Parts: sequence; structure tokens; C-alpha cells
Amino acid sequence: MDHALRLARRGLGNVWPNPAVGCVLVREGRIVGRGWTQPGGRPHAERMALDAAGAASRGATAYVTLEPCAHHGRTPPCAEALIAAGVTRVVSALTDPDPRVTGRGHAMLRAAGIAVTESVRADAAAALQRGFLTRVTLGRPMVTLKLATSFDGRIATGSGESRWITGEAARRHVHALRLTHDAVMVGGGTARADLPALNIRGFGAVRQPVRLVIANAPMPDLPPEDAAHGPLWVLPGPLPEALAELGRRGLTRVLCEGGGQLAAGLLGAGLVDELVGYTAGVLLGGDGRAAVGPLGLQHLSDAPRFRLAEARPLGGDLFHRWVRHA
Amino acid sequence: MDHALRLARRGLGNVWPNPAVGCVLVREGRIVGRGWTQPGGRPHAERMALDAAGAASRGATAYVTLEPCAHHGRTPPCAEALIAAGVTRVVSALTDPDPRVTGRGHAMLRAAGIAVTESVRADAAAALQRGFLTRVTLGRPMVTLKLATSFDGRIATGSGESRWITGEAARRHVHALRLTHDAVMVGGGTARADLPALNIRGFGAVRQPVRLVIANAPMPDLPPEDAAHGPLWVLPGPLPEALAELGRRGLTRVLCEGGGQLAAGLLGAGLVDELVGYTAGVLLGGDGRAAVGPLGLQHLSDAPRFRLAEARPLGGDLFHRWVRHA
Repeated sequence: MDHALRLARRGLGNVWPNPAVGCVLVREGRIVGRGWTQPGGRPHAERMALDAAGAASRGATAYVTLEPCAHHGRTPPCAEALIAAGVTRVVSALTDPDPRVTGRGHAMLRAAGIAVTESVRADAAAALQRGFLTRVTLGRPMVTLKLATSFDGRIATGSGESRWITGEAARRHVHALRLTHDAVMVGGGTARADLPALNIRGFGAVRQPVRLVIANAPMPDLPPEDAAHGPLWVLPGPLPEALAELGRRGLTRVLCEGGGQLAAGLLGAGLVDELVGYTAGVLLGGDGRAAVGPLGLQHLSDAPRFRLAEARPLGGDLFHRWVRHA
Repeated sequence: MDHALRLARRGLGNVWPNPAVGCVLVREGRIVGRGWTQPGGRPHAERMALDAAGAASRGATAYVTLEPCAHHGRTPPCAEALIAAGVTRVVSALTDPDPRVTGRGHAMLRAAGIAVTESVRADAAAALQRGFLTRVTLGRPMVTLKLATSFDGRIATGSGESRWITGEAARRHVHALRLTHDAVMVGGGTARADLPALNIRGFGAVRQPVRLVIANAPMPDLPPEDAAHGPLWVLPGPLPEALAELGRRGLTRVLCEGGGQLAAGLLGAGLVDELVGYTAGVLLGGDGRAAVGPLGLQHLSDAPRFRLAEARPLGGDLFHRWVRHA
């Protein structure tokens, strides 16, 4: 299942509106097929693994990171395909919360005489597929807030200089982070001031993320969509409505890259699911530009809280990731 | 030598104006004596190790984290004691920069026919004894700046609430940090507003650090010196002069615990040698109180920079330590 989870990870940022799923087929202790959701969401992981295995899928065990689908969408249901291929056992990590599917994929497999084991590595699968789960259960994409700051939480000096606070390794890592998100989001002020490219550079040919600007006023020229730039969507607030609209459009994972106003708006509305910090060993002082705008908190107990998930050195900076308290 | 360095560590915060030294005596592959600088700075590590070894020190090798002293101070010189005890080899980590000693301890040992190996684990020894080295070479104590902040670098909400941003493990760790410093320093504003106890609690009977307040105005009542509170020293600015005075008084390691004005003053004057961060997974927003006051930086290249030394989870918080770029 860990192998299937690693395969699933390849789809993150690349498969919306579908979930990023991984599938490994094992027969007599040997891997006979591997698959993961392909760019744009099709083919599904199971189809890819079955195609790779061919006749070897007969009698095999399928490890899948999400319950196989049972409904006819743009592709025939994977549960049917597993049955037709002669798979005899299915180990799945997570029940699909999608009401069209939930429990039916497993039931269809069992009805065909296949042994089904559920909830294997469920926590890891839920963490990996959090974007998809958030869209299905809350109707909005998962939101990751990235903050690249000085040790004292600043993104520019008082005089406005900001290049560069973090080092090259951290800036490259941001591009890898964009790679695992469906869209990159900024506020209108940041879009106007920095005209950020908001694309992925340095990882070869990839599907570029949607460029999202949350703004009520008209935007200046941003580069049009092309091979190096994803679609440009400008949405007005308020934020809960904007995110609901993104959910309807199929986005599962959105990376917010600023500015401070948008970050504060998302945090204040409880719409941030993960925090990613890049902290540099530099101090800019209280007159520097704050990474997060005013939150107007009266009490510390009202402040949004996150749980540390990982921390490690990255170049000369400190990388740390936090997830929202459940 | 690693063992000797671990012994030396026990003296940090406890032995000023002397350096915290460790000594291990080894004969025929067995440890026959161990010593470290005792509270208040005497006896020295070598004396303690020799006393522990007794007759077994004859023919032994001594591992010492600093060149043995050669001058008659309040104790007879350690180099003489090692010679008298019949030690045949000395391995030392660092040459003492004190002009009364530098090179003379090693020379005295060699003149007596003892084999001397120098500079073993010199970097680790220099890091450990940085406070003493800073006092001897720069005439001031080493300064550690502690910042316990929210993810976005705040120490209180806009409404002034600050208890507690970091968790219990981090707050306990601060007491352990005080334990390894000679003095704890705050600015006048912090002393007036918080009347901080600035002592060590929860580690049994210890030598309490000097309580330092940097202030030009008179101070309100702080608890007097007693078993639970170190001496109280109030010094006026400017900061370089105040630190030079502390160096003259013998302090080697000073921990600054705020507030933002004093932190900014020290950073701006290039007087911070180490940064210790406790970062909580909570956000307080741009209207929260900044951990560091204004630095008035025109250019990013003028900002004080530090190198990441360690980072790890601590309770629910993130602990990270940085040292000044050389």
C-alpha cells in the first residue's frame, strides 16, 4: 500500500477534478502492474495497472489508495474492470466519500466474489487525498498557505526590498510545491504589485497550475495562458463564495502565495488547511512588511491553530509544514 | 574528547567568569578520572579529575577541552598539577585566547616532557566555549536572543494577550536555556510591564542567573536576590557600553528575553551571537505585537543574518537555533 501511495502522489496537482489514486497489482509475491491517475484525471490508476499487467492480473491482489469507482462517468467503472480482469483480492485504503460511489465500489467487488480488505493505511491515504476529500465533504478545495519569511515573520524590509529573503533551495522548493497543487492563488494587491508569473519553472514539461487572483477590481495584464502559464481566473470575494465556486469548477488543491491581506482573510475565515513555512535566518524588524495582515483577534483562544507535521533544514533556510487542528 | 566536552557542558551558566572546561583522564584504556569546572569556577576541571584519579593519574592521558592554565590565579595552575600528578600525555581541544595563558600551558607541559596534542575537536570546543572566547576576544559576553513567537512572528495579540503562545514543553525548555546562561536580560519596558521572575524553576537547586535590566529610568520593585532569584543589575544604555561593562564584571553568556526594543537594539548593533526560536502553530496577524522592534533597514543586504544550527519539534512547537554568520 505504501508503494501505491507513492504512485498516487505523482498525480497531485495534475488530475483535478479527479482524486490522485495509486494502484499496485501483486501476484505470487511479484508486482505485475502499477498505475496512477493520469494527467487530467484519466485513465484511472486501476485501468493503467491492469493494462500494464495484462493477463497477469488474473488471480492478482490489487492495492488501491481509494475505493474503486462503481459509476459510469467518462470512463467505465474501475470495480467492473477489476472484476473482468480476474483480480481475486482488493486491499483499499479509503472509502470514497463521493455519494455516487461511497461503499458501492467495495460492494460491487464483494458481490463478484472478490475478497475486500478496507481501511489499510487510511490515515496516510486521507492525508494524501485531502484535497479531493475536502472538495467532496466541504464543497471547496483544500487550501495550503505558503509563507516565506524572515525569522521575525516579515516578507520585505520597511523600504520594500524582498529579493531575496529565502535562499535558492527554498525558492526552487516553492516550484515543487506548485507542482502538487491544482492552482496558485494571490490577492489583487499582490497580482498588481508583483505580476507574479505563478507558474512552474525548472521541472520540465508539466501541466501548469491555474492562476487565481482574488480581486474585486479589474486586473492589469498578466501573461495569457500558454505552454508555460496555466489558465487565469479572476474571482471576486467574499472568500467562502470564491472557494465554493472553485470547488464547483473541480479544483481540489489550491496554494495561496499571498499577500498578507488574502492570507489574513483565509485564516480569519477558517479556510486554511495547511501552512508551509520557509523561514530565513535574517531579521527585518517591526518596520518590515508583515506576512499576514491584521486578524483583529480579541483573545488568543480565537487564533487559528495548526499542528506541526514536519520540519527540516532546506538550503540555508528552515522548512516547516503544519496542518490544521481537526 | 567528546566525553570531556559533555562534562564541560555541565558548567555552562554556572562558572563565570571562568570557562566551562571538561577533563577526562585515561590510563590503559580505562577512564580513571573525570572533572568539570565547578560552580563559581573552582575547582578547575583538571584538579577535579586528578583528585578523582588519585595515584591512577600517573602515566595517564588527559583529555581537556581548553589549554590548561599556566598562571597563578585563585588556584594553582592546572599545567603544574598535571605535571606533578605524573600525567604523560595531554590532548587539548583549544588554545586559551586569554593573553595570560595563550600557548603557555601547552609550553609548560612540553617543557616537563609531556606529549601534547592540540586542536582535537577544536570546532566543537569553540562552539561550547563561545561565551568565554567572546569575552576574552571582544570584551563582552556572548548574547543569545530568545524569541518565542507565533508562526507569523508575534508575541501577543493586538489586544495584548500573550499567555500562552507556545506550549508547556517550550516554556520548560526556556528554563533549561536559562540554566546554561550566566545572566538573563530584559529591557526596561518588559521589566516594568511583566515584572518577569527571570529565574530558573523546576530543575532543583541551581545557581540562579544574574537578572539584568537595560534601562535608563528607575525600575519598579523586582524580587530581591535570594535562593530563588539571582542578583539584580540595572544598567543604562547605550548597549555596546552596557555589554562591555558586563564583560568587565565577568559574564560570559547572556540570554536576552525581550522585549522587542531591546532585541532590535542588540540586532542593529551586531551584538547577537545566537538566536533561539520557539515557533508555535498559531497566527496572530499583523495587528499582533511584533517580537522585534523597528530596525530601519534600507537594504536587505544590511539585515543581520544567521545560519541554522538545529531544528526539531518540541511539544507542539518548533524549536530552532541559529548562529551568527562569521
